[in-house]
Amino acid sequence: MSKLLVFGHQNPDTDTIASAIALTYLLNELSIAAEAVALGKPNAETKYVLDYFRVDQPRIIETASNETDAVVLVDHNEKQQSVSDINEVSIKGVVDHHRIANFETSDPLYYRAEPVGCTATILLKLFKEYEVTIPNHIAGLMLSAIVSDTLLLKSPTCTSEDVRAAEELADIVGVSLDEYGLEMLKAGTDITSKTPEE
Amino acid sequence: MSKLLVFGHQNPDTDTIASAIALTYLLNELSIAAEAVALGKPNAETKYVLDYFRVDQPRIIETASNETDAVVLVDHNEKQQSVSDINEVSIKGVVDHHRIANFETSDPLYYRAEPVGCTATILLKLFKEYEVTIPNHIAGLMLSAIVSDTLLLKSPTCTSEDVRAAEELADIVGVSLDEYGLEMLKAGTDITSKTPEE
Ligand SMILES: [Mn+2]
Ligand SMILES: [Mn+2]
Ligand SMILES: [Mn+2]
Ligand SMILES: [Mn+2]
Repeated sequence: MSKLLVFGHQNPDTDTIASAIALTYLLNELSIAAEAVALGKPNAETKYVLDYFRVDQPRIIETASNETDAVVLVDHNEKQQSVSDINEVSIKGVVDHHRIANFETSDPLYYRAEPVGCTATILLKLFKEYEVTIPNHIAGLMLSAIVSDTLLLKSPTCTSEDVRAAEELADIVGVSLDEYGLEMLKAGTDITSKTPEE
Repeated sequence: MSKLLVFGHQNPDTDTIASAIALTYLLNELSIAAEAVALGKPNAETKYVLDYFRVDQPRIIETASNETDAVVLVDHNEKQQSVSDINEVSIKGVVDHHRIANFETSDPLYYRAEPVGCTATILLKLFKEYEVTIPNHIAGLMLSAIVSDTLLLKSPTCTSEDVRAAEELADIVGVSLDEYGLEMLKAGTDITSKTPEE
């Protein structure tokens, strides 16, 4: 098997980028070769998050099959939201929190979905199950994903598990959940960071 | 939500029956109302297993929507292998080890699949994650499911995780994996237990 490419959906949001990076970190710690990539540029909020935690933007890909035969999806499963040539590669795993639709594989795979507000909430469980310590910057990305997907724990999709996960991650990072969360959401709506077309 | 019905595929095999009973036990221990049912009569092998561990045969259902609006699938996901009115109920969870195909939900759900030889191998992990002790008779059913699906750890689908799970479960039950496994497989092929039509 060639190196796994790990990516989220098109028009990436903070959960898609953060979860691709966090899951790739976990896989690498488990000695599985993997690279986090993205299907588009990070938005203003995600840029703020990556800058804040000094993490490089993931490489952007147009297609996957030109460089690998094996991929892992985060934060989505529907083919129309995925890489353009998803039918040309083998989906080895999915970590997601959405309904399942327009998804099919020819072989058994790892599929981990839970009805929570954010992919990163599920990833926190995976780090614990595999007993991998979460470094500060990865915890920061995961916290940001939960803040983004749940609008600072206020969205109707937010569950008690998301709340507990956000609190635990904020403790690891050493930030105030409310202060950091508000700054981050504000950065995402800051028009000065947008180009005229946006 | 009404009581969850938990069931495996049509023409049930030992993994389908055993995993429905084991997952239902786990859910009940977590204070989630659930009942294990089956989509058909147990085969000779499964009858031997249920008798051996003194577990009642699960109730057989023809349809689900007449008694619940919420179901959990084990050991399958494809609609054509499931209950006839699967489109009339909400699938709240799946624990499976097959490829995903012809499966779709309108809402997020728990989906736990791993590319291992048997559903019961995944269930053993779930018992550990939720810190629920496995009683002797449930361990016996789970062991039997692994023996059945992997032909006593000899099938090409058997993974090192299945081997470890079978050994651990045999220890809990207090039987010899090889001796019990051979007896069980033999019981499944014993023609004296079959009706003339079979
Ligand atoms: Mn997303
Ligand atoms: Mn998300
Ligand atoms: Mn089966
Ligand atoms: Mn099976």
